[in-house]
Amino acid sequence: MHIAMLVHDRFTALDVVGPYEILSRLPDVRLDFVAERPGPVRTDTGFLALTADKSLDQVRSPDVVVVCGGPGTFEQLENAAVLDWLCAVDATSTWTTSVCSGSLLLGAAGLLRGRRATCHWAALDLLKEYGAEPTEERVVTDGRYVTAAGVSSGIDMGLTLVGRIAGDDHAQAVQLLTEYDPQPPYDAGSPHKAPAHLVEEFRTGSRFTLA
Amino acid sequence: MHIAMLVHDRFTALDVVGPYEILSRLPDVRLDFVAERPGPVRTDTGFLALTADKSLDQVRSPDVVVVCGGPGTFEQLENAAVLDWLCAVDATSTWTTSVCSGSLLLGAAGLLRGRRATCHWAALDLLKEYGAEPTEERVVTDGRYVTAAGVSSGIDMGLTLVGRIAGDDHAQAVQLLTEYDPQPPYDAGSPHKAPAHLVEEFRTGSRFTLA
Repeated sequence: MHIAMLVHDRFTALDVVGPYEILSRLPDVRLDFVAERPGPVRTDTGFLALTADKSLDQVRSPDVVVVCGGPGTFEQLENAAVLDWLCAVDATSTWTTSVCSGSLLLGAAGLLRGRRATCHWAALDLLKEYGAEPTEERVVTDGRYVTAAGVSSGIDMGLTLVGRIAGDDHAQAVQLLTEYDPQPPYDAGSPHKAPAHLVEEFRTGSRFTLA
Repeated sequence: MHIAMLVHDRFTALDVVGPYEILSRLPDVRLDFVAERPGPVRTDTGFLALTADKSLDQVRSPDVVVVCGGPGTFEQLENAAVLDWLCAVDATSTWTTSVCSGSLLLGAAGLLRGRRATCHWAALDLLKEYGAEPTEERVVTDGRYVTAAGVSSGIDMGLTLVGRIAGDDHAQAVQLLTEYDPQPPYDAGSPHKAPAHLVEEFRTGSRFTLA
């Protein structure tokens, strides 16, 4: 089982490290961080760099592709090298997946036309531009395409995939290993649950911005 | 607000990227990844390297210290350079914190004597060796010491700290930004919830090992 995790400048770290932590516990797995230019790739905050060990050319037929999002994703939506790579690896992948605004990249590569998909809640409607059907679920499976909502949802997607690939027993073992028994101290993790003024602050970009 | 995140060879990525993703959204924050030897530091799986931009000497008085765990933590428990650094930064920190087996490092540095603390569930009893009181909660606060349970619990700890540092409103905004509305597809994230045979497999090391 070979997994490729695509990163780009100003990606969001947890988008990719969440599913990495889960998927890297599959049996007989090999996992590569991939970028257009291998080497250190900086996250959106600038405080952290992850190493992409492989260039696009070096990873041609992974079984699973994971595309992360982040503010820098928007700059990649017309990057032919990245879009061509996504189309090429998708031709032979078992699962093509994304977290957060990474689904916009799958969309821009033409892979989500007519499919149900999700994205970070604040960018969900943008999926329509690529012919996808925005879907308000945390993890959306449509055929061999699995998209997850914002940032932390990649952990839930990872466990869903491990269950599909290696069975429920192994997925539960990984959940136990990572002690994934979430107990958030607040209940504000979706626009339907957060105080309305915080959702509005997002819409106006007054506290955080997505791009 | 200056945050230092200590990493070491064979650390567990999500231990540190979980709280990083949350704490890096504090207002006016500066955050450094720190290691004994700066440069790329490999995780426990070997598939991922994070860059430690700073050496121990370069970070002397952070406001918040976060110590991660992982299989490699056990090799650090007698590393005088790391333990001395922890004691030095703890002398002036506002919050000294850990995720997973990182609490054993705080214990080895002598910082948890007589304190309630937690750790990865499978290593919780080891805290007694350092005079700490093992506590089965996901996030344990004792004075200015905050310890979190295994791997994914650092996200909950991060939100708890953001609430204490910047207020409930900002913490909820960060939860909304990271869409942290967890929906695990299984309910096996603690030894009290997982199937008994999986807990037993951990105890015997037949599927995964901690060290």
